[in-house]
Amino acid sequence: MENLRTLRFVTLLGSLRSGSFNGIIARALPALAPEGVSVEALGSIADLPHYDADLQAEGFPPAVLAMGKAIAEADAVIVVMPEYNYSVPGALKNAIDWLSRLPETPFSGKPVAIQSASPGMLGGARAQYHLRQVFVFLNAQVLNKPEVMVGQVAGKVDEKTGELTDQSTRDFIAGQLKALAELARKG
Amino acid sequence: MENLRTLRFVTLLGSLRSGSFNGIIARALPALAPEGVSVEALGSIADLPHYDADLQAEGFPPAVLAMGKAIAEADAVIVVMPEYNYSVPGALKNAIDWLSRLPETPFSGKPVAIQSASPGMLGGARAQYHLRQVFVFLNAQVLNKPEVMVGQVAGKVDEKTGELTDQSTRDFIAGQLKALAELARKG
Amino acid sequence: MENLRTLRFVTLLGSLRSGSFNGIIARALPALAPEGVSVEALGSIADLPHYDADLQAEGFPPAVLAMGKAIAEADAVIVVMPEYNYSVPGALKNAIDWLSRLPETPFSGKPVAIQSASPGMLGGARAQYHLRQVFVFLNAQVLNKPEVMVGQVAGKVDEKTGELTDQSTRDFIAGQLKALAELARKG
Amino acid sequence: MENLRTLRFVTLLGSLRSGSFNGIIARALPALAPEGVSVEALGSIADLPHYDADLQAEGFPPAVLAMGKAIAEADAVIVVMPEYNYSVPGALKNAIDWLSRLPETPFSGKPVAIQSASPGMLGGARAQYHLRQVFVFLNAQVLNKPEVMVGQVAGKVDEKTGELTDQSTRDFIAGQLKALAELARKG
Repeated sequence: MENLRTLRFVTLLGSLRSGSFNGIIARALPALAPEGVSVEALGSIADLPHYDADLQAEGFPPAVLAMGKAIAEADAVIVVMPEYNYSVPGALKNAIDWLSRLPETPFSGKPVAIQSASPGMLGGARAQYHLRQVFVFLNAQVLNKPEVMVGQVAGKVDEKTGELTDQSTRDFIAGQLKALAELARKG
Repeated sequence: MENLRTLRFVTLLGSLRSGSFNGIIARALPALAPEGVSVEALGSIADLPHYDADLQAEGFPPAVLAMGKAIAEADAVIVVMPEYNYSVPGALKNAIDWLSRLPETPFSGKPVAIQSASPGMLGGARAQYHLRQVFVFLNAQVLNKPEVMVGQVAGKVDEKTGELTDQSTRDFIAGQLKALAELARKG
Repeated sequence: MENLRTLRFVTLLGSLRSGSFNGIIARALPALAPEGVSVEALGSIADLPHYDADLQAEGFPPAVLAMGKAIAEADAVIVVMPEYNYSVPGALKNAIDWLSRLPETPFSGKPVAIQSASPGMLGGARAQYHLRQVFVFLNAQVLNKPEVMVGQVAGKVDEKTGELTDQSTRDFIAGQLKALAELARKG
Repeated sequence: MENLRTLRFVTLLGSLRSGSFNGIIARALPALAPEGVSVEALGSIADLPHYDADLQAEGFPPAVLAMGKAIAEADAVIVVMPEYNYSVPGALKNAIDWLSRLPETPFSGKPVAIQSASPGMLGGARAQYHLRQVFVFLNAQVLNKPEVMVGQVAGKVDEKTGELTDQSTRDFIAGQLKALAELARKG
């Protein structure tokens, strides 16, 4: 039996709402990860100011540096986000705008998986293709498949307990984490 | 001679840097507008917090309400923005995310023109098509042509005086403002 | 009671399969159009050769000229298409590539509505946003809403009779045709 | 000194015009490839009929099978295309639509590089991002960087001799081929 290297994944959550559907999914990931893979949450995107090059000139905010370091040290990043207005949430894009300015952009060459959930049928698909374009610039290695777009999410979670209850969604997400681990191990 | 209705345009600036190239362009617009058209700046996107549905539940922030009111009262909106990471700046998208949640979204049916400038050759083109997709959801009337993408902008402005000096760019932008006025008068 | 101008819509079908789901929808449109609006099918995209500027230099193929004339004379165009590989079907795009080269592009200023159907959940959404970008260049007036994306289409048609049987889909499409008629009458 | 595996790249050309700018670039590639890498042209996309599932049911056309086999056997694919109407040429997309239906899609896992040239400033950028979205579905490994978008191409070639004359463009393209070789060797 192969002795696989332990991997550390980090999640970047694109919603600030405390009861966020996407937050529920993000918090379910540690239990869905394959053996030998840990999943930890990055700091909140709420802690980063609006990107401003004048502010950058005074020095990167500590929250940006911390988030950049955590990504740089991770084996892969999982972005979990809602779709706002057919695109990436502004606050999430703002975090990426900051991270992209770090001297060594932490996304370069980094394996990335994207997940999104929405109350409607499309599950955030429109936002995912915008985010993929962003990651071309950042030179990330974005996993092609499987694509996790959780539509009609309200029926797939228990909002009271904050749990992702739909088994087929859990299995599908577990499959993506497995594929991400393979990508990360390939390096 | 036709007696045209006076129009009020407002600009939504997507950069926070004080010496921003796009800011230079935005500030040049009043002088480039056709007769009978005024152009005023909206408040800064820096004044809006990160979008958070929990915060919204406590009431819209005053800066969101003020920006929404100013857009609702205007005849057209001109978005002037840099491209960050092949897409719309996060802080600008965040402002739109807030505005989209207002009970009566101020962009619905509103004539909109998009302008972008960048140091590279593409002039922010990639961000413009993402923003157009956002405006499909918001049901805005986005002007198709002319598309203002100012490439190699550093050579077209005087950064010391903050002026847009390139005459052909000035003329091209004036042409877009004229087309926007026609769209706005058609209503 | 207002006496509305009669309108002529034409459909551009993006699938060649005889039993195509999208063909079923396209053939249902005449019965779903509001009073005073006729809907006729354009010629088949199969009749146009692959776009080749050398061929164009010898003169536009008759099928291109006929399709261009029919669009130019119509009050609006309805594109009904499947999604192939997350984008517009090549054969449909090829027809548009030919039409775009006509001395007076028939799409300029033309009201356009987009419909797509797919067996999956997304109903062709990804192809629609690509097509919208194409229509920016062609300067068409593409209807923002409602967006007709018919997911899980196999359960909404009777493949034997070739009928669109799902009533809520019929109503939704009828609503789009009504909105297109309003756009076309506004001119 | 490392003894590198010899690689075979194939080019998929998206233009049918005999004097095509993109054809000039495609024909320049063998001379620009790094040592140990050969570049051969695939058959013409003109030889494939419009995609039609009814036709497919009768058996794949020989030209589709031949192109699919050549791609499957190659170490990487270079797509060289013009931009038509802000997107991928229909005839090229049509070839991809056929190839995607082959029992074993030849693009799955395949390293791919994209090149485009245009008379304007943007060099086909808009088409490239659409094509990248297509390749997500096809599960190709599309090279992120460098992105080859040759703007103002008329001044960079000699149309009489059919040669790519601009040295900086030649060097830039050579750099992309080198990066593609690294991706292909990583496998």
